[in-house]
Formats: sequence, C-alpha cells, structure tokens
Amino acid sequence: MVTIREGKEPYTLINVFQVEPEKQEALAEVLRQATESAMRQLPGFVSANIHRSYDGRRVVNYAQWRSREDYEAMQRDSQATPHMAEAAQLAESFDPILCEVVESFEVSG
Amino acid sequence: MVTIREGKEPYTLINVFQVEPEKQEALAEVLRQATESAMRQLPGFVSANIHRSYDGRRVVNYAQWRSREDYEAMQRDSQATPHMAEAAQLAESFDPILCEVVESFEVSG
Repeated sequence: MVTIREGKEPYTLINVFQVEPEKQEALAEVLRQATESAMRQLPGFVSANIHRSYDGRRVVNYAQWRSREDYEAMQRDSQATPHMAEAAQLAESFDPILCEVVESFEVSG
Repeated sequence: MVTIREGKEPYTLINVFQVEPEKQEALAEVLRQATESAMRQLPGFVSANIHRSYDGRRVVNYAQWRSREDYEAMQRDSQATPHMAEAAQLAESFDPILCEVVESFEVSG
C-alpha cells in the first residue's frame, strides 16, 4: 500500500509521458517491467505507481524515492538506464516533475 | 493518510498546472483553500494532494474521487467552480489527466 504524506520526503517524481494511443499499453508495460526488474532493487526505492489515462494519450508514473540522492543515483545506474531509454523512445515526450507534497487532504473516517 | 492502489477506483485526477515561479505559492494556496472550503465537503471526495515542483514552474494536484460521477458532479457544483476558475487564472495552463492505476509497486517490509 502506497501512501502520500506532506513533506519533502520521500522525494517525489511525477513523470508525465505523452504517447500515441496505440502505444499506451506498451509504454505502461515497459514502465512496469522497468520497475519490476530494475528500479525496485535499487537503494532508496519507495514506490512506483503507473497510471493509464482514459483518453489513451498519457501514462503517468507517480514515484517515490527515499531522497534526491537515491533518485539521482538511479538515473546513473546501468540497470535502470536502458529501461528509461526504451520508455523515452515509445513516448512522444515526457515531463519529469520533481516535487514535494505541500498539502494532503483525505476524507475523515 | 492517502493511499494509492491498483484499479479504476477511486477515480484519479492528476492535474498538472504550469505556472510562473512567482505565482507558484499563490496557486498552491488557492488549491489548498479550494479543497479546504469546497471540495472536501462534496459527496465522493476521497483525497487531494497538492505538490510544488522544485523548479518553481508546476503545481500538481493528485486527487481521488469515489467515482467518475462524483468528479463530474463536482465540476458542476457552484461551491467548487469559482475556486477552479481562480486557479485557472493564476496558471499559464493546466492539464487534467483522468486515469486509473494499472500497477502499484512499493518496497516490502
């Protein structure tokens, strides 16, 4: 179960991929496999949550890392980089948004 | 505590606002107040999570509604619409991505 809380930690990456609808499923699968086979083994991995937009044109990965240092180490990791290149090639574009949670509201009870 | 799980429910909205850095804080505050005073009172509200990007140029609301019907009813609600208009005016653009969670990975233990 993945949780969202206010604060700078974990370090949050919201990566928004634009994709042709006929490639949406393949892109989501590449991200799934990347997480399964590489990302989740790396130090500081907290979570990855792969979303498919109903309009067919976006895939969003909401990911959490323990720290900025862990995220940056992943970007240089030789296990992770081939998967990221594969995802980038399937997408039309991608926009990695690095951010912190400033406020979190949930239903009570 | 907000949780992410695989599946079509809750209905997920990832709203990505592009903003001038000097307006980022004001935009996050409008979204905070909108959630506090309007959204969270509405039927089917599950969560809202307001994120500030470190580059200063984005605010992201990761929101969950019980169902698509609840989300669409919110969009027509006279309490909610003035807040949405205010946020839209502060932003350069916004991109509401309606989606489902196809896969969720978290660290074990």
